[in-house]
Amino acid sequence: MPERTSAKNLSKMDRDRLDHLYEHLQKISPRTIGYPCNQAWDYSELFRFLEFSINNVGDPYEGSNYRLNTHEFECEVLDKFSDYTKADKSDFWGYVTTGGTEGNMYGLYLARELYPQGVVYFSEDTHYSVAKILRLQHTRNIMLKSQENGEMDYDDLRESVRLNRDAPPIVFANIGTTMKGAVDNLDKIREVMREFVIPNYYIHCDAALSGMILPFLDNPPPWTFADGADSISISGHKMIGGPLPCGLALARKQYVDRVARSVEYVGVLDTTITGSRSAFAPLMLWYALRTLKDEGLENNAKHSLAMARYAVARFNEKGVPAWRNTNSVTVVFPHPAKSVMEKWVVAPNRGIGHLVALPHMNEALIDSFIDDYCEARSDEPVDERRIPGSKDPRRGSTSNAGLI
Amino acid sequence: MPERTSAKNLSKMDRDRLDHLYEHLQKISPRTIGYPCNQAWDYSELFRFLEFSINNVGDPYEGSNYRLNTHEFECEVLDKFSDYTKADKSDFWGYVTTGGTEGNMYGLYLARELYPQGVVYFSEDTHYSVAKILRLQHTRNIMLKSQENGEMDYDDLRESVRLNRDAPPIVFANIGTTMKGAVDNLDKIREVMREFVIPNYYIHCDAALSGMILPFLDNPPPWTFADGADSISISGHKMIGGPLPCGLALARKQYVDRVARSVEYVGVLDTTITGSRSAFAPLMLWYALRTLKDEGLENNAKHSLAMARYAVARFNEKGVPAWRNTNSVTVVFPHPAKSVMEKWVVAPNRGIGHLVALPHMNEALIDSFIDDYCEARSDEPVDERRIPGSKDPRRGSTSNAGLI
Repeated sequence: MPERTSAKNLSKMDRDRLDHLYEHLQKISPRTIGYPCNQAWDYSELFRFLEFSINNVGDPYEGSNYRLNTHEFECEVLDKFSDYTKADKSDFWGYVTTGGTEGNMYGLYLARELYPQGVVYFSEDTHYSVAKILRLQHTRNIMLKSQENGEMDYDDLRESVRLNRDAPPIVFANIGTTMKGAVDNLDKIREVMREFVIPNYYIHCDAALSGMILPFLDNPPPWTFADGADSISISGHKMIGGPLPCGLALARKQYVDRVARSVEYVGVLDTTITGSRSAFAPLMLWYALRTLKDEGLENNAKHSLAMARYAVARFNEKGVPAWRNTNSVTVVFPHPAKSVMEKWVVAPNRGIGHLVALPHMNEALIDSFIDDYCEARSDEPVDERRIPGSKDPRRGSTSNAGLI
Repeated sequence: MPERTSAKNLSKMDRDRLDHLYEHLQKISPRTIGYPCNQAWDYSELFRFLEFSINNVGDPYEGSNYRLNTHEFECEVLDKFSDYTKADKSDFWGYVTTGGTEGNMYGLYLARELYPQGVVYFSEDTHYSVAKILRLQHTRNIMLKSQENGEMDYDDLRESVRLNRDAPPIVFANIGTTMKGAVDNLDKIREVMREFVIPNYYIHCDAALSGMILPFLDNPPPWTFADGADSISISGHKMIGGPLPCGLALARKQYVDRVARSVEYVGVLDTTITGSRSAFAPLMLWYALRTLKDEGLENNAKHSLAMARYAVARFNEKGVPAWRNTNSVTVVFPHPAKSVMEKWVVAPNRGIGHLVALPHMNEALIDSFIDDYCEARSDEPVDERRIPGSKDPRRGSTSNAGLI
């Protein structure tokens, strides 16, 4: 007789292990302050949909023979994101991905299909996964220097483009770098293109975390489709938050169509990268957007920025040279001591650590971390107190310091 | 004040839409017989873990700074799969993926890194996503003819390898094709390599569905690491089943290590493709393996084969030329009539349809489908009764007929 997975077949030992995991997660979650994952959410209302073999295989706009899907909800999520990213509705396409990496992969794939001889420019502060994607996709690329605050060095971009004017530039712009929350400026990037009268270029924006903060600020830096982006990747499990990594790949539809036509002759009718896709992730995002509404999302963005300001002020009061970029919820400080790393889940990298201020955080939590940080710091020799933002000849974000 | 997603903010209209979706899924699930997704499972015991921002970012064996993970459970799942795929434990590596596509992408990426000048050979019955991956990864490739039963045409492989002896062959073997469940024979593939004294070649096995059937049969065809596979992709949401697409990328560790060393210099320390990864999927697979145990998995495989045999016999009794490949749970029959397609969720493609017999199916369900099929068929003109297995000059599996 066939059998089904069922709790009644779970041994006492295995049940204890699950209970232990649950307790561990309960304990460690509140101390996870160095990663960009909002923890203020509750999707229990949706768990009943996990009774079905749901799957959003294929293009959300094209429909599917596999009728156990949530494409309709996915399209509504995408429509909201077309607002947040100031897209031209008639020239917009997207889908819900497995996370930020897939969104970046999608943008870089589109760019390379449009400009097979193109060169990708990205700063040394870019997340390590981008080098991985470029390797996977066999795309020519040049790593640029960063400025001290983590932003792309536009002089280096200018010089590199000047030396490669025969190759269409594909600029990978960080809309909030992993370690320092720095935003590469689309106006300055386009200025370089104009300077060298480059007829064809492409800009992809990695707005993993900030893509759900900047839409709710009064004077955001240029980062949207209206500002010249050709594709944008935003994570779902970061600012919105959730138990499963997910994200959005957004792009100008005319490019997607052009690439779709060119691959159709090899029999590829699916425009997404993954094929089978979670039907739960789009439902989760839909639920968050419908229950929080724009007002809630704005409150969350503003609360997070207020918490980041608060953390910088508190650090500075205590003599710690912490800082943050404008509009960023990422607070940078010198590498914490070992004892702090054991108690708190932070993501230090090359001499610096950071705290990512998010909706679930409050002053008490931040105070508690800063107290531990300063206490441990006073026990350390002065030469261990490294300076944040200090340059390293090797690139910024290796190791899995930053989720994407 | 910050806000959290919460059921209390859900409007009446939105709640009704969710209820409607739930009812739709309840109604359509039992009639979803044309896709390879087992529906006999219950993971409700694990829903409590969806309260946390869990994430299995990075290599499951390397540990992670992000401590809200289930890497330990993932490694146990992988260990079981090393048994099922007859891997040498000292030369085995893997991770839980977002689905079959990522597992195939991983294998083909490894192969291309090892043999940058290699040519990928794959049959016309291969899932359309493979052409997509090869395009994404810029890998040279040749599509081979298939035999009538869906298996690779080994003469075409021989002839193609003969004409390209300077390029290391990378053979993409289907261990169960999407439409006909045909298994490409690793012995015959290796025979071709021996014939032309090819020193370097690579075999990737796409065992999406059958990878969890063949380990439990007495005389499976050659498909494991012991039979010469270099990497294997298996889906989690197919034979095991679950609400979220997932899968396993499995490979010989020596290759993974070699590629890891060569990419390290560009700062890539993460050996997985996606980076951020679901921590729930490995937990789900762990739970299935621990509650079903090998005995339950074997019962499920044998029940599914018995149901497939039953379906072929019933179809044939009624004069329908249905058939299946040995060891396959996929029953092939002529394209069903439109009315059948409206009631049942099947995945017809180029003149044929199929039923995938799985653990949740029983005789009554199969009878019910066959009755509807035959009734509608008798209403159709004879020339519409197309012959299964009939060749088409274009390739086999386009459209999203087959999930991966």
